[in-house]
Amino acid sequence: MSRLEPQPHCFEYRRRVEFAETDMAGLVHFSNFFRYMETTEHAFFRSLGHGVHEIVDGQSVGWPRVQSSGDFFQPIRFEDQIVIRLSIQEIRRRSLRCLYYIFKEDESGETLVASGRIVTASVQFNRRSGDIESVEIPKELSRKLQAALESQKS
Amino acid sequence: MSRLEPQPHCFEYRRRVEFAETDMAGLVHFSNFFRYMETTEHAFFRSLGHGVHEIVDGQSVGWPRVQSSGDFFQPIRFEDQIVIRLSIQEIRRRSLRCLYYIFKEDESGETLVASGRIVTASVQFNRRSGDIESVEIPKELSRKLQAALESQKS
Amino acid sequence: MSRLEPQPHCFEYRRRVEFAETDMAGLVHFSNFFRYMETTEHAFFRSLGHGVHEIVDGQSVGWPRVQSSGDFFQPIRFEDQIVIRLSIQEIRRRSLRCLYYIFKEDESGETLVASGRIVTASVQFNRRSGDIESVEIPKELSRKLQAALESQKS
Amino acid sequence: MSRLEPQPHCFEYRRRVEFAETDMAGLVHFSNFFRYMETTEHAFFRSLGHGVHEIVDGQSVGWPRVQSSGDFFQPIRFEDQIVIRLSIQEIRRRSLRCLYYIFKEDESGETLVASGRIVTASVQFNRRSGDIESVEIPKELSRKLQAALESQKS
Repeated sequence: MSRLEPQPHCFEYRRRVEFAETDMAGLVHFSNFFRYMETTEHAFFRSLGHGVHEIVDGQSVGWPRVQSSGDFFQPIRFEDQIVIRLSIQEIRRRSLRCLYYIFKEDESGETLVASGRIVTASVQFNRRSGDIESVEIPKELSRKLQAALESQKS
Repeated sequence: MSRLEPQPHCFEYRRRVEFAETDMAGLVHFSNFFRYMETTEHAFFRSLGHGVHEIVDGQSVGWPRVQSSGDFFQPIRFEDQIVIRLSIQEIRRRSLRCLYYIFKEDESGETLVASGRIVTASVQFNRRSGDIESVEIPKELSRKLQAALESQKS
Repeated sequence: MSRLEPQPHCFEYRRRVEFAETDMAGLVHFSNFFRYMETTEHAFFRSLGHGVHEIVDGQSVGWPRVQSSGDFFQPIRFEDQIVIRLSIQEIRRRSLRCLYYIFKEDESGETLVASGRIVTASVQFNRRSGDIESVEIPKELSRKLQAALESQKS
Repeated sequence: MSRLEPQPHCFEYRRRVEFAETDMAGLVHFSNFFRYMETTEHAFFRSLGHGVHEIVDGQSVGWPRVQSSGDFFQPIRFEDQIVIRLSIQEIRRRSLRCLYYIFKEDESGETLVASGRIVTASVQFNRRSGDIESVEIPKELSRKLQAALESQKS
């Protein structure tokens, strides 16, 4: 368990834990932490004016995940209010690495409950053949991601 | 709660309850009963040699649900072994109505824990426009469904 | 498909469709409509100052679903903004029946995309024996539900 | 992406991809790979005669996840037949580290589509206080895990 130091972030997203996200141990199922991270990434893309799954020139483009990991420090439960902070780790030509810090919020403040990382590839789907081809991150999006990364450093 | 009398069925599917399907009450979340029904319908289609989501003549065809209901008589829990029985209720030109009976199996036998119904429409998706158009059930599939319905009556 | 007339409601909840809630047909999977209804019910209970899963006198009390149904008129997709309206249909001594109307919101206004019903029983769980016993809806909650039902009629 | 060399394994589990596990990209959503790993771990425990969530001496014992990661090499799709192989990486006094290799099976053989790791802690839940306390892996289970680890080396 490598408890990463929270870093400057460039986006945050709030959400309340839903009942169907818990399991019989009374806790949020660990797979749902990955969904929280993803939802935050999508909200971040939306904030930049970009979708995560679009039809461009008749081709379907998307962002399948090639790697992801999570460290779970504290359990969270039904109705807990959480905030997920996104930090861009690296923008590559054909992929994006983001870090996520998940905090539980209550009257006493914030507690770091989990951290994670998602590595995402920029791809084109060919609906008929089923092929997936790695492509460069679109220039305009790349530029906006770079700007977000800069703002995060300051 | 209308406890339907189990009826002759034409297909059955076995499955064990997975951990992520439970919720903090220690029971299978009710939304997952609908997934069990669907999985059974898909296995039934597969047994007839048909997929439920296919590309035909460059068009994507599928079976979105237009109605579904469930009656939950007994809870089921993690690791319970269940059997889902499918009974065709009605084959229409552009839709299919199936009934489902979910039983828990253990050393003492079978217990009916839930029943349900799914009404499904036969449609064509236009990926670009996003339009969904109701279409007739393909002839060959319709014929096989009819045969299954006949076998069920006997 | 019985398209119910929207009725006066006593609570509403907004939510945006998440990526993991879609399926390969590009639409929200029908099982997730039931989760949207449930999340709305829980937010409604919260608005009344009551939880849906509590420990009372060392007993775990909860609200398992005994019946639920949905009619799906229009598909919804990733990032769609939806509003779910809850209408109390009937408050019984040991159960609650609520109706749900799900609308898609966009610049052109609201479109009814689905309706549903959930019948919920008030129960006590015995964690050790695993028994579930139907109990009366707590008086204070029953009174608040009654007030919400009255407000809805006006 | 660190593509781990498949290692000797001590358990395997087969499963077919279900429709609700796909997303609008037409692929299995990455969060579900973690559920496949977990389901395999639970089946492994079951094969050893142990549950993963039990009441022992009136205390609820369980195995919350403290770390997990996945590398996704190839997408998998609806109806794909997969086999998940579990390899014990390390048995500690209070935690267990397992590796998972997920293969797609078809007529042409097996393709490695993903690998992952889950680190799990052995804990006791106090249902009333909500506290979670790390405890030693029960002796009998620890002994069986050790035997499985030995068999895997050979």
